[in-house]
Amino acid sequence: MNASAPDMSRFPELSAPERILLGPGPSMVDPRVMRAMVTPVVGHLDPTFVRLMDRIQDLLRYVFQTANPLTIPISGTGTAAMEAAVANAVEPGDAVLVCVNGYFGARIAEMARRYGGEVQTISRPWGEVFTGEEVRAALEQRPAKVVAIVHGETSTGAEQPLADIVRAAHDGGAIVIVDTVASLGGVPLSVDALDIDICYTGSQKCLSCPPGSAPITFGPRAVAKIDGRKTPVANWYLDVTLLRQYWGEARIYHHTAPISSFYALYEALRLVAEEGLEARWGRHRALAEMLWAGLERLGLALHVAAPHRLPSLTTVRVPEGVDEAAVRKVLLSEYNIEIAGGLGELKGRAWRIGLMGYSARRENVELLLAALGKLL
Amino acid sequence: MNASAPDMSRFPELSAPERILLGPGPSMVDPRVMRAMVTPVVGHLDPTFVRLMDRIQDLLRYVFQTANPLTIPISGTGTAAMEAAVANAVEPGDAVLVCVNGYFGARIAEMARRYGGEVQTISRPWGEVFTGEEVRAALEQRPAKVVAIVHGETSTGAEQPLADIVRAAHDGGAIVIVDTVASLGGVPLSVDALDIDICYTGSQKCLSCPPGSAPITFGPRAVAKIDGRKTPVANWYLDVTLLRQYWGEARIYHHTAPISSFYALYEALRLVAEEGLEARWGRHRALAEMLWAGLERLGLALHVAAPHRLPSLTTVRVPEGVDEAAVRKVLLSEYNIEIAGGLGELKGRAWRIGLMGYSARRENVELLLAALGKLL
Repeated sequence: MNASAPDMSRFPELSAPERILLGPGPSMVDPRVMRAMVTPVVGHLDPTFVRLMDRIQDLLRYVFQTANPLTIPISGTGTAAMEAAVANAVEPGDAVLVCVNGYFGARIAEMARRYGGEVQTISRPWGEVFTGEEVRAALEQRPAKVVAIVHGETSTGAEQPLADIVRAAHDGGAIVIVDTVASLGGVPLSVDALDIDICYTGSQKCLSCPPGSAPITFGPRAVAKIDGRKTPVANWYLDVTLLRQYWGEARIYHHTAPISSFYALYEALRLVAEEGLEARWGRHRALAEMLWAGLERLGLALHVAAPHRLPSLTTVRVPEGVDEAAVRKVLLSEYNIEIAGGLGELKGRAWRIGLMGYSARRENVELLLAALGKLL
Repeated sequence: MNASAPDMSRFPELSAPERILLGPGPSMVDPRVMRAMVTPVVGHLDPTFVRLMDRIQDLLRYVFQTANPLTIPISGTGTAAMEAAVANAVEPGDAVLVCVNGYFGARIAEMARRYGGEVQTISRPWGEVFTGEEVRAALEQRPAKVVAIVHGETSTGAEQPLADIVRAAHDGGAIVIVDTVASLGGVPLSVDALDIDICYTGSQKCLSCPPGSAPITFGPRAVAKIDGRKTPVANWYLDVTLLRQYWGEARIYHHTAPISSFYALYEALRLVAEEGLEARWGRHRALAEMLWAGLERLGLALHVAAPHRLPSLTTVRVPEGVDEAAVRKVLLSEYNIEIAGGLGELKGRAWRIGLMGYSARRENVELLLAALGKLL
């Protein structure tokens, strides 16, 4: 191995196309967020950064619609926030009920097993949702300390109603983890009104920030459960009993925060606040309805029944005889548009079209419909 | 909780001062890296991004001086890479020997305990280093499957010689984890020449990239140990048996990569390769010697004995009667320079001065010495 300089022709200057990102995330990034991201890097205990941390927390409380003090961004992508939820909430031996109607529910179950949870799952076909009664019945058969469910399943395009589920879980004495990776900031949700105990998201979906940070909030029941743990959280990097000392008044060093990612997150959250959640939810809903109507006009079938469609992510059935990957390839090469294929059960059978954050613009919907009209 | 737009006067436009970062990291970022970071975000399976992943891996192999196929950046900061090393290498019940002569050795030991390791530590005073004989003796008393040690202790400024340690560990049948968070890219190190099994670093130290990604490499002994695990890796996000399927030819989705952080890392690695490791190591050494001589001319005592000083991070003893925090405060407010106080055992007793990557420039050394000369 040679320590002198290597042949640089193998490592050309970075370039990447300006994609129209209409997949399940990352979504497109507002130019203001890009500019914010290149703000000079300061130390993770610099007084200017500490002030910014407080502001990020306040904006996150707005976006989650919560007063929870323990509301922070995790220093990783959405999956790291999922893991933070599970690792902190689940102690070895805890009974855990996970509702699985898609890829990400299954991922939560797998993580909960790895942290020593005694995991039971209930399932629904991909694209359907659970009722409160199903959760209530499962908990009556076998009580659990933690119930986990996905609000917006990126793999199926279904939006899970939550009020009855949360009530059933609390009646059964469980705390509730809700995954809003594909929905928060684009689809109506209020952590406090729904009384959700742990809720997390990713930066790169409806918040339209580059991937690299992942907001999470812990309510009083969750904090009490964590404070009552008999064993330390196995995951040191994501241990909120340590993280809250850095994000709280003590400012005790835990790990070096991803400064630039948090700059970007701050600006992305400001954009959400400027628009206002209600207006933003309305925009996502209106554009989704435009997309759904347009797809149906093209003769395409939507995978999820109308009442449970997720505005931020739509699954479309691939018509008989159409090569789904070939269509995506042409969309990318000829139109610069990214949409995604199906995941898991829907692999080869569906396309996934995201309308999230800065990607959720009328011109993108019109262009995609026009392109699909030509291709199909 | 009100979902309409909040009062934006509480959330002013982002601004941060252009600090001269001479602390233990993050270090300053080359403007080229900043520009690369705002390259348009593409999907994490976009063909242009997949090509970039290969190039990042090749550049990382150069920087680590290794041919290891399993060489990737972790989607988190340096601590996440430390956790990836420990979580993958240590199985519940494994005997682990951790060499602790500073804050970060102690952190590895804590993580290894959380992953079920039977941890034994040997220790040296903060600022001193271990000999191969000490490791050999410890392993003869109690064999271990994993030995962990820090190459450049950010908390003490000591550089650990590694050849004898690695040999002693291998003779004892253990694999070796080496933490190079504060040294890789600034201080001579060759993973393959030293025969290190697992080595990791952070992006924000000698590589001078914003924090948010953390390179790690696994050699054949480490891969064999991981492949032979009887239990899954408890940490899903950092499980390299899954990560290598995304970074390898299969390209199986694991989590959304922090695209912009990897853009920045690519450019930072190109800068390392253009300069060449040997030249870069020489620059760090020359500037450190300039700093050390200057500090001694000011009558200041260096904490670490000359043969074991880490070029990238220098610890200086605070003179009797001087308020160390007050000096740092004036450096920050009057000169815009960040240096750090001591950590752990050295809290209140030492300053920590980093000369890493793009921060390691002659003008920064001269300015700091001039400022300290006025203040002391």
